[in-house]
Amino acid sequence: MSEDSEDENRPTTPWRERVHEIIFEADTPEGKAFDVGLLIAILCSVAVVVAESVEEVRVRFGVYLLAAEWLFTILFTIEYGMRLACVRSPWRYACSFFGWVDLLAVLPMYLSLFVGGTHSLIVIRTLRLLRIFRVFKLGRYLKEARTLLIALKSTREKITVFLVAILSAVLILGAMMYLVEGPENGFTNIPVGVYWAIVTLTTVGYGDIHPKTAVGQILAALAMILGYSIIIVPTGIFSAEILTARQKDITTRSCATCGGEGHDHDANHCKFCGSRL
Amino acid sequence: MSEDSEDENRPTTPWRERVHEIIFEADTPEGKAFDVGLLIAILCSVAVVVAESVEEVRVRFGVYLLAAEWLFTILFTIEYGMRLACVRSPWRYACSFFGWVDLLAVLPMYLSLFVGGTHSLIVIRTLRLLRIFRVFKLGRYLKEARTLLIALKSTREKITVFLVAILSAVLILGAMMYLVEGPENGFTNIPVGVYWAIVTLTTVGYGDIHPKTAVGQILAALAMILGYSIIIVPTGIFSAEILTARQKDITTRSCATCGGEGHDHDANHCKFCGSRL
Amino acid sequence: MSEDSEDENRPTTPWRERVHEIIFEADTPEGKAFDVGLLIAILCSVAVVVAESVEEVRVRFGVYLLAAEWLFTILFTIEYGMRLACVRSPWRYACSFFGWVDLLAVLPMYLSLFVGGTHSLIVIRTLRLLRIFRVFKLGRYLKEARTLLIALKSTREKITVFLVAILSAVLILGAMMYLVEGPENGFTNIPVGVYWAIVTLTTVGYGDIHPKTAVGQILAALAMILGYSIIIVPTGIFSAEILTARQKDITTRSCATCGGEGHDHDANHCKFCGSRL
Amino acid sequence: MSEDSEDENRPTTPWRERVHEIIFEADTPEGKAFDVGLLIAILCSVAVVVAESVEEVRVRFGVYLLAAEWLFTILFTIEYGMRLACVRSPWRYACSFFGWVDLLAVLPMYLSLFVGGTHSLIVIRTLRLLRIFRVFKLGRYLKEARTLLIALKSTREKITVFLVAILSAVLILGAMMYLVEGPENGFTNIPVGVYWAIVTLTTVGYGDIHPKTAVGQILAALAMILGYSIIIVPTGIFSAEILTARQKDITTRSCATCGGEGHDHDANHCKFCGSRL
Repeated sequence: MSEDSEDENRPTTPWRERVHEIIFEADTPEGKAFDVGLLIAILCSVAVVVAESVEEVRVRFGVYLLAAEWLFTILFTIEYGMRLACVRSPWRYACSFFGWVDLLAVLPMYLSLFVGGTHSLIVIRTLRLLRIFRVFKLGRYLKEARTLLIALKSTREKITVFLVAILSAVLILGAMMYLVEGPENGFTNIPVGVYWAIVTLTTVGYGDIHPKTAVGQILAALAMILGYSIIIVPTGIFSAEILTARQKDITTRSCATCGGEGHDHDANHCKFCGSRL
Repeated sequence: MSEDSEDENRPTTPWRERVHEIIFEADTPEGKAFDVGLLIAILCSVAVVVAESVEEVRVRFGVYLLAAEWLFTILFTIEYGMRLACVRSPWRYACSFFGWVDLLAVLPMYLSLFVGGTHSLIVIRTLRLLRIFRVFKLGRYLKEARTLLIALKSTREKITVFLVAILSAVLILGAMMYLVEGPENGFTNIPVGVYWAIVTLTTVGYGDIHPKTAVGQILAALAMILGYSIIIVPTGIFSAEILTARQKDITTRSCATCGGEGHDHDANHCKFCGSRL
Repeated sequence: MSEDSEDENRPTTPWRERVHEIIFEADTPEGKAFDVGLLIAILCSVAVVVAESVEEVRVRFGVYLLAAEWLFTILFTIEYGMRLACVRSPWRYACSFFGWVDLLAVLPMYLSLFVGGTHSLIVIRTLRLLRIFRVFKLGRYLKEARTLLIALKSTREKITVFLVAILSAVLILGAMMYLVEGPENGFTNIPVGVYWAIVTLTTVGYGDIHPKTAVGQILAALAMILGYSIIIVPTGIFSAEILTARQKDITTRSCATCGGEGHDHDANHCKFCGSRL
Repeated sequence: MSEDSEDENRPTTPWRERVHEIIFEADTPEGKAFDVGLLIAILCSVAVVVAESVEEVRVRFGVYLLAAEWLFTILFTIEYGMRLACVRSPWRYACSFFGWVDLLAVLPMYLSLFVGGTHSLIVIRTLRLLRIFRVFKLGRYLKEARTLLIALKSTREKITVFLVAILSAVLILGAMMYLVEGPENGFTNIPVGVYWAIVTLTTVGYGDIHPKTAVGQILAALAMILGYSIIIVPTGIFSAEILTARQKDITTRSCATCGGEGHDHDANHCKFCGSRL
């Protein structure tokens, strides 16, 4: 993208450096203070959203909540502007995940000026909680994250097969129960049956829909034992996977040819394509 | 089986080779296209079955759904025929698991021509979802599957003992509750008690049947703690098992060229000399 | 015990050898046949007990069930007698776990001749299912069992602390909910609160008792997250433990001085008391 | 703190030594006897608290329970005094966790003399169960505890990220359901939605609140599968973590006498030369 490249060679003035350091790092006292302040602001603003949804609170403190909401919106707007101002490439930032989160944190209130009633925007407003992840500068967690990602990546295929298998099981089970129990027992159609199957296999078991006929109960019992033993499989896979990743203390090296990752320390060649590392 | 052997030495004509490549492999563009098409067809046809089970949809779009169902049935019939035509031994294919699944995907509609009402065949019609597994050519997953199978096989005996133990526990628990709570509290007979025990030990807990007497609740509480701690055992076994299988896999493989050892289970090339394993 | 010692030096006649081989081993065809027969008999007799508890079945086939019950009782009595006859020390057998199970399998019917109504004995009658464990000659499973036992033994202390912690948590939680929710919301006393806490922490969640006040729901939510994260601890411990036991492939040697078990192959001294092995 | 330092150099008279040995250690017969007595006293006193909360029991045996409660209070008061008397620094003891627990075990009854009705103190009274942990002298469990702590500490950061992620998921999910289902289906406000989300993701599933609209049920189904697969992550992390901690423990220990390595985490003596580790 052309804007991007020209953003790149935007000159970094000292004040921009300074602001960037405060907002994006946590090494300086100002940086720490900013993070703490941001954390509090985020939590309070979320608390406001939650409180607003409570009837009793809204009727009594509605106006104060609105004021607070506007206060936080303005604060976050300023912060958003500063971030845009001090990053080396505003465009990339704006398009990044956190860029969107920061924007969505302020947008709803401004929208509410034009379209009446922010009620339907309440979910978007809660998204601002995600900004919390900004505060722990993720650098510290990257190593952890990497181990997790490697484990997840190398289990991806297994998990895929596993999920498809689950979905098939859930669909067929739902269809069976729909046939066996029928609408008179609450299984009005296959989607309901599938919903029941998921509620059961995940051991949530609300009890809003449950088998009443003998055959249905036998089917359900078998399904539960199945579901109970099924959780073992991915858990085992994942534990083993993450342990392997851990023990081998995999290097960050990635193959220049095929981009494969997760090479051992003593590896000279890519284990996937065999080209020299 | 005699047909089988004579199938074997059926001459493979070029067009047969071609079709086989398209249908059974995914290396050629045509093969990929076919797979994607098949995937979509399967999902749509399942969606039709599901939609048909919804009262509101059936009354409004019943005729379209029937048309779609026939369309997919004909498509799948053609596919089935082509598969039969191009495999080297049709008989073995027809008797294979997927052979049956492919057949069951089309059979219900043809049956519905003679016997009225396919309602009771709805479960068989959902089975066609299993054909999804055709689409990921399982070759890629075989290695994963092997690790899983090794782990499962070596835990088989343990799991058997474990299951029998569970079943005994469930039966005895069910009988106890039937005795303690009695029909007046919903435990009308031992099977119901067993059903309750399974619902409880798997932590599903619908709440349709639950102990009301003090003794029953104490029994239930003990059962829950039991069930809660029981899941640990197989999980532990399985995790250990799969990890052992993995590690064995790592240790046993050595490079034919340089004799290097300690290759990962997902390695295709020797990490030392880069030659294919 | 004096009987015991004199049992020991009871001469083993050939026919006794023969019967013992058939009943207790599964190497000879007769032994296998006997096992299969026993398995079927056990399952059928349990099925009879279960069926008898079902109102509809009892009223219609009550007499046949009674006949079958007597048949199995007599069969098992003969078997029990033969076991007593062919073992080298009848007394020790009679006192062993399976000795008791075998006896309890036949006792209820004989008791029913004197005291009327075997209803309250129904639980004892279901205990006969445990005799199934006789059929898989446990020798094959001993190695598995040993690994399990070692893992369990070495986690015993951890599990103890863990269980006491859980019980404290459950009691205190129950008391809190009793205080917060009170009898008007179903928490009529602390035992009920504890019952609720167990139902919740084990994620069974019947829903027969659940918090209705805001404070109660917050407490419950915290408790659930607690309970959810708690299952991780013992699972992790156990997985690690069983894996260690597996990998070290522990010997059966036990220390002559302190009786400690689980020594490595290369161990010359007991790792607990240091005395020579 | 000045008292502290002067406590330190408080002369330890022989009788004080003696009492300390009895109360705080379990090596002497008196010490063991004291522990057993304490254990019984604690359990009984807790039983009294629980029994008192049961309507029927209170009305019939209220006076006896009160007497028993006073008896235990006096016993625990004496014990508390003796502990204060024999420890080298009473102040530090009084400020320690168990010091507080010991105090809170007796306080409620004395308070009940002045303020009427100990009902609201019932939770504090149940806290005395924690004194059980005094009885297993924790020394034996320290090694186990250490492994656990190491594992927990090294997973702390991961768990933090994990918990924040869960909380965000729960909040956003709650808001979505509040929007989709609305007050007419029981989701009266976001807190209720969050409560539902926690009840669902932890697979407790009371069923007091559950989605009724199709969209809500689809959302719920997705959330359940999410929650179901989420438990795998921390379990895997923790299992791997604890195993690593264990193995590190094994590798790092070497015998001072013969320099042998690879001792188990529960080994007290070198397995090669038998000398104490």
